[in-house]
Amino acid sequence: MIGVYDSGYGGLTVLRALRSALPQHDFVYLGDSGRAPYGGRDSDTLLDFAEQCTERLFEEGCSLVIVACHTVSCIALRHLQRRYVPAPSAPRRILGVTIPAAQAAVAASAGHIGVLGTERTIASGTFEEEIAKLGPHRVTGCAAPLLAPLVEEAWEDTEIARMAVERYVRSLPDVDTLVLACTHYPLLLPAFHAVVGPGVRVLDPSPHVAASLVDWLARHPGFTAPGQGRLSVLCSGDPVVFQRHAERFLGSALSAVQHVEEEGGRLARRDALTNRRGQVVR
Amino acid sequence: MIGVYDSGYGGLTVLRALRSALPQHDFVYLGDSGRAPYGGRDSDTLLDFAEQCTERLFEEGCSLVIVACHTVSCIALRHLQRRYVPAPSAPRRILGVTIPAAQAAVAASAGHIGVLGTERTIASGTFEEEIAKLGPHRVTGCAAPLLAPLVEEAWEDTEIARMAVERYVRSLPDVDTLVLACTHYPLLLPAFHAVVGPGVRVLDPSPHVAASLVDWLARHPGFTAPGQGRLSVLCSGDPVVFQRHAERFLGSALSAVQHVEEEGGRLARRDALTNRRGQVVR
Repeated sequence: MIGVYDSGYGGLTVLRALRSALPQHDFVYLGDSGRAPYGGRDSDTLLDFAEQCTERLFEEGCSLVIVACHTVSCIALRHLQRRYVPAPSAPRRILGVTIPAAQAAVAASAGHIGVLGTERTIASGTFEEEIAKLGPHRVTGCAAPLLAPLVEEAWEDTEIARMAVERYVRSLPDVDTLVLACTHYPLLLPAFHAVVGPGVRVLDPSPHVAASLVDWLARHPGFTAPGQGRLSVLCSGDPVVFQRHAERFLGSALSAVQHVEEEGGRLARRDALTNRRGQVVR
Repeated sequence: MIGVYDSGYGGLTVLRALRSALPQHDFVYLGDSGRAPYGGRDSDTLLDFAEQCTERLFEEGCSLVIVACHTVSCIALRHLQRRYVPAPSAPRRILGVTIPAAQAAVAASAGHIGVLGTERTIASGTFEEEIAKLGPHRVTGCAAPLLAPLVEEAWEDTEIARMAVERYVRSLPDVDTLVLACTHYPLLLPAFHAVVGPGVRVLDPSPHVAASLVDWLARHPGFTAPGQGRLSVLCSGDPVVFQRHAERFLGSALSAVQHVEEEGGRLARRDALTNRRGQVVR
């Protein structure tokens, strides 16, 4: 069983690509929607949330967790790996989305890569760092703080979205490859394609994240076995709201969303099923 | 000395109106920009932040604190008043922006008031509650989650902003008065005036908040005395970034912004001036 973690809905665009590439595998998705967006949180809080969500996915029986959010991958992935994968023989693994995205960008680019993401993703410098390990490409980052809220508002097909995308794209002249380094942005692909100049490749990293995972599983046989293509979706926010929004990101209907209670600033543990105050729902 | 508290920049539009109405008074503004936006925080955290900021303004010597943020006024004002103003004889007072806004809306409206604000403000139902105490007006609220980020991005004069405002305004047909129930929105006044129909009054509550305070001070003589028109500005985020943004909201230049350190999730106390780790700057 493979766990997929995001602060909210965006990771569902990654989950969609993962399920398409690995249709036999079982997935558990955890969206921490009750505490999203993470953008304004200090780093310690973000690491704490990432730990809680990773641990919850381990408790669900996942031996492999994909951090399907560029912001969390940029800020917290190394911390999570150090904490939960202390040695190569560790029984659990945590993978992110930034390295596959950087690899795909380097493979696609003739020399100048543009990166659009959240303020935290861009400020972290993680893309520059990962791309520098792979080639001598020039990297220009641009924070696009309005794009995720536009998608959350379901305005991705409006002229407002097209003009906002155009404004951010114009701030990255001369790039030949434009990485959509936020998992909300694939919903804006039509807007991006409408405004980029000829010769600019718009790169949605999701299929590359999926291809990279297929390759990783082949190199780690027996780590997680194919199942029956099942999907469980958990969220810490309102499950009805989550289900309504989720279908736009996932591209298909969801039969059920389970709620994970938060108590005293922490996600409830899976084994707290019969809480004395009846606050834990699964 | 009068304290003015907001989660970030928006309260500066209120401060502008307050200083214009009370030019002799001294003000201390505290923008909790290091932990903004508050939108995604749970209510307990929001109350905790509001307590910390209120206490810091008390420590600065303010006997009167204005909560210059509709979201915080709607969620936390009663809590703050119960905690810090236990009796009418208490030496400190805390006032908000929602009641003056509701009073101004009722005075302006012929019967149907529209309210635009953050998701938390609208979900709280506080405007409906306060307006119901004043008259039989119909109230329709609409969350406008993109407008504050548009202003934060300094896009308030773009066609994108005009179209976004138009979309939200259209979702409130038949209102005769439209309350801008978020302190960021006054920067979008030209966009609102460009798109509302004839006979719709767009209400920026700030001058009404100021008039209400002038009236309150007249009824509470000796509570806070006129000073020399001084202004101190504190923020918990990056003071250079704060100063750059603040001037758009305040409408005038700021000579200096002092940084308030955060340590272990709490704002540093004012008396921690000579911290052993040198982390407190005033």
